[in-house]
Amino acid sequence: MTRTTPDFSRMFRARSIAVIGASTDTKKPSGQPLMHLRKLGYAGAVYPVNPRYAQVLDWPCYPDVAALPETPDLALIAVGSGQVLQRLEECGQRGIPFVIVITSGFSEMGPDGALAQIQLEAVAQTYGTTLLGPNCQGMISVGAGFSLGFGLPYGLRYTSGPISMTSQSGGWGNTVMMLSEKAGLGFQNYQSMGNEASTTSMDLVDWFLDDPLTGMVVSYVEGCKDAHRLVKLGRKALRAGKPYLLWKVGTSDAGARAAASHTANLGGSAKLYKAAFRQGGIIEVTDVDELIDRAKALLAHRRPKGPRVAVVTLSGGAGVLLADHCSARGLPLPDLLPQTTARLKAILPPYAGLNNPIDLTGNIAAREESMIECLQLVIQDPNVDMLGVCLAAASGEAGNLLAGWVAQVATQTDKPVLVAWVATHPDQTQAGFAALEIAQVPRYETPVRCAIGMEALWRFVQSQQETAQIDQEPIYRLERPAMRATLAAAERDLSEFDAKKVLAAYGLTVTTELLARDADAAVNCAKAIGYPIALKIVSADIPHKTEARGVRLNLADAQGVRDAYDAIHHSVALYAPQVQLDGVLVQAMVTEGIELILGVQDDPLFGLAIMCGLGGIYAEVFKDVSFRLLPITRSEAASMVQDLRCFPILNGARGKPAADIEALVDAIVSLAALALDLQGRFTDIDINPLFVRPAGQGVVVGDALIKIRP
Amino acid sequence: MTRTTPDFSRMFRARSIAVIGASTDTKKPSGQPLMHLRKLGYAGAVYPVNPRYAQVLDWPCYPDVAALPETPDLALIAVGSGQVLQRLEECGQRGIPFVIVITSGFSEMGPDGALAQIQLEAVAQTYGTTLLGPNCQGMISVGAGFSLGFGLPYGLRYTSGPISMTSQSGGWGNTVMMLSEKAGLGFQNYQSMGNEASTTSMDLVDWFLDDPLTGMVVSYVEGCKDAHRLVKLGRKALRAGKPYLLWKVGTSDAGARAAASHTANLGGSAKLYKAAFRQGGIIEVTDVDELIDRAKALLAHRRPKGPRVAVVTLSGGAGVLLADHCSARGLPLPDLLPQTTARLKAILPPYAGLNNPIDLTGNIAAREESMIECLQLVIQDPNVDMLGVCLAAASGEAGNLLAGWVAQVATQTDKPVLVAWVATHPDQTQAGFAALEIAQVPRYETPVRCAIGMEALWRFVQSQQETAQIDQEPIYRLERPAMRATLAAAERDLSEFDAKKVLAAYGLTVTTELLARDADAAVNCAKAIGYPIALKIVSADIPHKTEARGVRLNLADAQGVRDAYDAIHHSVALYAPQVQLDGVLVQAMVTEGIELILGVQDDPLFGLAIMCGLGGIYAEVFKDVSFRLLPITRSEAASMVQDLRCFPILNGARGKPAADIEALVDAIVSLAALALDLQGRFTDIDINPLFVRPAGQGVVVGDALIKIRP
Repeated sequence: MTRTTPDFSRMFRARSIAVIGASTDTKKPSGQPLMHLRKLGYAGAVYPVNPRYAQVLDWPCYPDVAALPETPDLALIAVGSGQVLQRLEECGQRGIPFVIVITSGFSEMGPDGALAQIQLEAVAQTYGTTLLGPNCQGMISVGAGFSLGFGLPYGLRYTSGPISMTSQSGGWGNTVMMLSEKAGLGFQNYQSMGNEASTTSMDLVDWFLDDPLTGMVVSYVEGCKDAHRLVKLGRKALRAGKPYLLWKVGTSDAGARAAASHTANLGGSAKLYKAAFRQGGIIEVTDVDELIDRAKALLAHRRPKGPRVAVVTLSGGAGVLLADHCSARGLPLPDLLPQTTARLKAILPPYAGLNNPIDLTGNIAAREESMIECLQLVIQDPNVDMLGVCLAAASGEAGNLLAGWVAQVATQTDKPVLVAWVATHPDQTQAGFAALEIAQVPRYETPVRCAIGMEALWRFVQSQQETAQIDQEPIYRLERPAMRATLAAAERDLSEFDAKKVLAAYGLTVTTELLARDADAAVNCAKAIGYPIALKIVSADIPHKTEARGVRLNLADAQGVRDAYDAIHHSVALYAPQVQLDGVLVQAMVTEGIELILGVQDDPLFGLAIMCGLGGIYAEVFKDVSFRLLPITRSEAASMVQDLRCFPILNGARGKPAADIEALVDAIVSLAALALDLQGRFTDIDINPLFVRPAGQGVVVGDALIKIRP
Repeated sequence: MTRTTPDFSRMFRARSIAVIGASTDTKKPSGQPLMHLRKLGYAGAVYPVNPRYAQVLDWPCYPDVAALPETPDLALIAVGSGQVLQRLEECGQRGIPFVIVITSGFSEMGPDGALAQIQLEAVAQTYGTTLLGPNCQGMISVGAGFSLGFGLPYGLRYTSGPISMTSQSGGWGNTVMMLSEKAGLGFQNYQSMGNEASTTSMDLVDWFLDDPLTGMVVSYVEGCKDAHRLVKLGRKALRAGKPYLLWKVGTSDAGARAAASHTANLGGSAKLYKAAFRQGGIIEVTDVDELIDRAKALLAHRRPKGPRVAVVTLSGGAGVLLADHCSARGLPLPDLLPQTTARLKAILPPYAGLNNPIDLTGNIAAREESMIECLQLVIQDPNVDMLGVCLAAASGEAGNLLAGWVAQVATQTDKPVLVAWVATHPDQTQAGFAALEIAQVPRYETPVRCAIGMEALWRFVQSQQETAQIDQEPIYRLERPAMRATLAAAERDLSEFDAKKVLAAYGLTVTTELLARDADAAVNCAKAIGYPIALKIVSADIPHKTEARGVRLNLADAQGVRDAYDAIHHSVALYAPQVQLDGVLVQAMVTEGIELILGVQDDPLFGLAIMCGLGGIYAEVFKDVSFRLLPITRSEAASMVQDLRCFPILNGARGKPAADIEALVDAIVSLAALALDLQGRFTDIDINPLFVRPAGQGVVVGDALIKIRP
């Protein structure tokens, strides 16, 4: 599975390009790539290849790639789907390193197309050709000033900049690029992915992260086949300090269905994608505006040391808005130091707001020294990690001056400064815009969008810190050959009694319990364990004991045990008359503890994933769960617990005693070790409930089930 | 409190205007209103008033309003804060109906300013003057083509249209207006509110809803003083079919603090604002983009009959996105009828997607008849309530043609049609944009924003239906003079035992319980009630029984009761040695039931509000609560329960038996009747827990507390 990522610089900096199947009809996809190359003034060698022509546009045309005067760096194939394989083979024989196939009619068309696509893949592998597509639209090297593709966006010039992007939807990718460009973002490389027969988005992203000209990576993704690589790429991006923004679509049922039919991509489970993004510090976006807002903030080089925001505003309303939206996104507005407030008070008029948000009021616009001093005082306050400045609708010369002062203060600090400013006449405040851009001060039209940018900055720094920690930690591993043998020998799913034995072998604490085969034995077991006890039916044929009414709780004495024994057998006989019963489990009651659920699933697409969540009757409605792909380190296990919304309850909210969070984290780490050791032998492990007892008293597995891989 | 709302048409259609304190310096706030009137070509009579000038700009200037040749419809006061009262009085004497005060230095400046403002209010009341401001920026009558205010936005021309807007922040209101204008929305009236000394946003909104030229109302609100009127206005808007969009800021602590100091507005509780919006069907927005997206959809006249969306797309990616975001917003994508799908299949190429979303693929762009037929088939399908069409990045002539075909289909249906389309060269597709506008097809740049529009349409229709239902229902009322007397006589908060008696008097079922003063009595009580029982300390000095360890549950026999009695007295003596104990409550255990909380609070700003929410240990973290302002009808009580995220549990999720929702709704209605009958005598009523038992078995008040108004 592991391959060396090609060095795509030879493609994005291609010095010679062949277009195979080149047409003189510039309305056709096969005619457009050459038209765009000419229009964009591509300076390298261009070789149209088509036996039907002697010349296409200004260039001599060759009958086949063998006839070319040199081996081009890059070829595009635009012939009918039936001829693609042959042309690709010729490219391989000629030693062309990069080939883009725009022709459609492959895996997106069903089984026959999929078969044809596999043949393309095989040929590419034989010759070591890097194949892009089929069914893609092409590529754009904004940095080198050329494109190779069809469709109007491939004929446009873009502002060059540090963003490199891949898209699994050609049309939508171009839309994102155009809207981002309109918002002032610049691009370096763009690749339309199509069906990803052999080269995937992740191959490109891997190279983008090595490319010194790329400072930020964006992917538009309908589906991917290797979530673990996604995590690795995310962490590589964090280490490189290059934000990786990913837009995953197809998260709804209807959307996933459409995505699957669109580029023949398996969608994969939305919650496991989210786990991969979380683990890799990948910045998920769900709209083009959100992408732009986050990208703007992250493209400026200053990074906050913490989440605390100071807001300075010329308009009360704008300041309120920015404060609200920072708070909603987990960015607190701290009080400033008393000495800062005192100095602000000396400078500002009496009706100014001195609390954070600091409302300078509109009058400040005319007072250069005061404005600069206020901004300096606030940004230098040690309680402040980032500064948001609302210039409201400042216009004309006043707006330019204000922006200049903000820019001046920003260049003297290493704390991020962001601006919310909707200039009334943007044409008159271009100087102010430029001053902010030079000072790396991101500018937003509204305070709300400014808050989105601030949040992105802090989350990125947080993810970098988390990854640095994870990089230093070992993966906890255990080997239990006996348990591997038990699972290998199992012919059916392990019921509670046997599953708990497996869990115990990896260090998880399970309820004290004994198996009894008649009522007398049950009473003796209960006496040995101590009352109160629970009684549960044991039968591998009855996975849902509660549904079969095969469980009785809180039995207080011998008579209770006898009555319950009879009642359980009566209920179960009605529910499932034919099944064989193995006896009853006599189990200690866990009296105190918060009910959670733990589990591991072996996902067909993503492999092992571990889950921790709220248990009990509300589990289904609040869906308060966190997932991680395995393996995980201890700090990742801890972050799973901290990510739960019910974490404050575990942590002792409302003056209640805290639960044993350390033991819970240990249990997750042990379960992860178990899953890695037994990988391949099970499909699912469910622990429900896991009782998390008060601090110091550990956790106890209440019930468990292990589903065997058939 | 109830006043007749003035007919503001005389202000927004003013035929004569006086500017009191008019200055020749157009840089000053007092110089700008006249400058703007002249620039905008105001056709009415203009009267500068200032004893220092004989003429200002082109107009003769008068020493005072008494000297004016006629009584103007509208006056603006722009004198120093010390002279405002005198000038306002002169306006009153002259009989000027509308006076706008832009001068600041009133309640926003603290107690002295507040006192000065109360004097303004009194003078306005004496003369029946409608006073706007002080500390506001002015008004804009877009429809009549003039403005009266200071600041650059008051000198601009706007596209006229059906939106009338109020803003409590002058600067931010103008920003919203300019950004909305840029997005193609048109305005009728705009008012900057300032301190709202006597005229409030709600007075304006009330009139906007009567104004035949207004089709939509927008308010930017930092705080308001009468939430019940907000509900009434919301319902008036629903009945009038005029969407009322409200942007409430100051929802965070920092934001509320800033809002309070900004226009001296009490913020009020965010959750009670939300209750008012919910009850009034007011469309809450939290960003200017969201405002624009919702407004665009609602300004088109077609309304959906249900929430079901069909998506037709030229780009697979865009279709996936629209599907995802519709699903996330509760708009399902239904399957089409088999006959619809069959007919689509006959028209479309084999690789087109026939499931909803329907992917026509880009090739359709050249085939007029096919495109129109597909759109018609889909929109006519009875499973479809709304149609979203993704034109992706269609450009030039092709884009214009496509837009024309969509427009053609849209005019033949009464179902809403919305378009997501980011044209590559917008200048070349103006014809297409115009065709869509004429056909009332809202156009969005991205599928995500298109989904926001669709959601707004369906929510508006839902709110209209809910209000129509509520309008037909009575308010349930009960009179219990004895209970009124009990509360009036109470000297301190009612503890569990007494509070439950009050609740029972209004028809709420409480736990069976008896008061015992010694251990023997407790055992006798327990026998009478039947085991298991709970024992709870009774003392008006101990409101938090659990904290005092004064509660024992699940006592099974006489010895258990005796032990618990002693243990409770021991614990409580340690916790609060001095207090007087009234005895112990012997209470039947409620064995089955979901724990909710019910409550009523008498809010200083909003009056009586009722609450229903999830109880138990997770109440604090999930905050799953719904609020309504009283009075409420039965369907509103039912909607409170349905709004809870835990509703599926009550309704019998996962095959479990449903809880007694009818009895829960009855309990809410009874508690509401209680609160109305006892209004003024309490500050809070808490029922925690309320056990909601299985269907048919009712609800039981487990514990309760009534806090008496001192």
